[in-house]
Amino acid sequence: MSRLGDIEAVAAALTRPPFQRFLEITPVEVDAEAGRVVFALPFKADYGRSEGGQIHGGVISAFIDIAADYALSVRVGDFVPTVNLRVDYLRPASGALRAEAEVVRAGRTIGVVDVVVTDESGKLVAVGRGTFGAQPG
Amino acid sequence: MSRLGDIEAVAAALTRPPFQRFLEITPVEVDAEAGRVVFALPFKADYGRSEGGQIHGGVISAFIDIAADYALSVRVGDFVPTVNLRVDYLRPASGALRAEAEVVRAGRTIGVVDVVVTDESGKLVAVGRGTFGAQPG
Amino acid sequence: MSRLGDIEAVAAALTRPPFQRFLEITPVEVDAEAGRVVFALPFKADYGRSEGGQIHGGVISAFIDIAADYALSVRVGDFVPTVNLRVDYLRPASGALRAEAEVVRAGRTIGVVDVVVTDESGKLVAVGRGTFGAQPG
Amino acid sequence: MSRLGDIEAVAAALTRPPFQRFLEITPVEVDAEAGRVVFALPFKADYGRSEGGQIHGGVISAFIDIAADYALSVRVGDFVPTVNLRVDYLRPASGALRAEAEVVRAGRTIGVVDVVVTDESGKLVAVGRGTFGAQPG
Repeated sequence: MSRLGDIEAVAAALTRPPFQRFLEITPVEVDAEAGRVVFALPFKADYGRSEGGQIHGGVISAFIDIAADYALSVRVGDFVPTVNLRVDYLRPASGALRAEAEVVRAGRTIGVVDVVVTDESGKLVAVGRGTFGAQPG
Repeated sequence: MSRLGDIEAVAAALTRPPFQRFLEITPVEVDAEAGRVVFALPFKADYGRSEGGQIHGGVISAFIDIAADYALSVRVGDFVPTVNLRVDYLRPASGALRAEAEVVRAGRTIGVVDVVVTDESGKLVAVGRGTFGAQPG
Repeated sequence: MSRLGDIEAVAAALTRPPFQRFLEITPVEVDAEAGRVVFALPFKADYGRSEGGQIHGGVISAFIDIAADYALSVRVGDFVPTVNLRVDYLRPASGALRAEAEVVRAGRTIGVVDVVVTDESGKLVAVGRGTFGAQPG
Repeated sequence: MSRLGDIEAVAAALTRPPFQRFLEITPVEVDAEAGRVVFALPFKADYGRSEGGQIHGGVISAFIDIAADYALSVRVGDFVPTVNLRVDYLRPASGALRAEAEVVRAGRTIGVVDVVVTDESGKLVAVGRGTFGAQPG
């Protein structure tokens, strides 16, 4: 069976890399067949771009990278490397965030994934798109 | 005088946002007139994508975002918001990293900045390009 | 009334720039309030990347740029400049194409627009995302 | 010998695709070993975004795509497909243009190429970066 076949496997995998332990991302939904995940990012003071609580852009782009990577990885069945990542910041954010990531195209050598990040009120915070290697590596 | 006019002001500013304190970035060179900064990222176990020490892509993209933002901010004289960020990952990295960021074009409403990230042996790790608001905000 | 308020105004505007006359793009749907357009690109031998009929990537990216620009322009009520454009090519294409472009976010100074290009069988050919000035210019 | 080994082979190849015949791009320098080309785009009324002569963004992005693709193709020895392309428009342009394209990284499966477009006075008009398949295809 795949190392990433269900939500429990994804939840466990997310706690392994030290930087992901810092981020404390949890999976909300995992659809391996579709290549789709929904992830949650809690609010932590350490994420701030100020003491006041606005979340640093670097935390948002990391959240997007990780969600996108898992959307393709759960479909491929193992971790895939990020080739490039593009993030458009739409609104300042504070509070917990949610990322929906979905595979747009899974080719033979590369895949393209789209991510939408929203805040607790459902407002768009950022959109991301990335290219990933389509083979584990 | 500008809030970001010299390397001491930049070093102090880098320690203020909680997420930047986590990253421990330090300035190596600051050229406000040219819109150019060189920043150093130390190696910390917390940055890992594995216990073994390979640095997580999310740390590299945050490093790129911050260096690019400062390159334009030191030229404008105050902090500017990131509009979008694009990162191409070229090689897996471990150890300390260095980012050179330089303003490509500072327009009336937006600016474009290029960033090159290298490892301790001088090898290219990633390149980034971002669009930033050209007014403090 | 706006220079771009309805589909007839858009159809007329599309024939004015010499390069757009070469492309022969026509509007299928225009929703000024939503910031959404659907455009059609006919098949012409001049678009080829080979004599055989595969469409050149440069034609596809121009089609995406134009559709995205109009999606925001019809909402703003006048033409807006492209700040940056990103295109992911998903499949080789031949035959007529269709672009659906929709404003993701229209801010005070910039806007972000998403575009999906499909072929006559409805297959995804390319996706694009662009940043545009949100003021006529 | 490679199909693209010298400037004459590149000049001949540039005239084959119908869309490239429309653009009338010519090679100025070709360095197959470095993965670097310099291409020239003449000024034609057909390129306009207006009758007045400002060049359409779609022509500039096509010029960037083609120059970038050849920079990697001359190094690989055959044509490579564009995976994605990102263009930042820095200044309106009119008159003849010049593109310098250089391979940043040629990996086993993909390559990254940077392009700088300048006008006749040497001013920056646009910068581009693209990901390409690193195998002929």
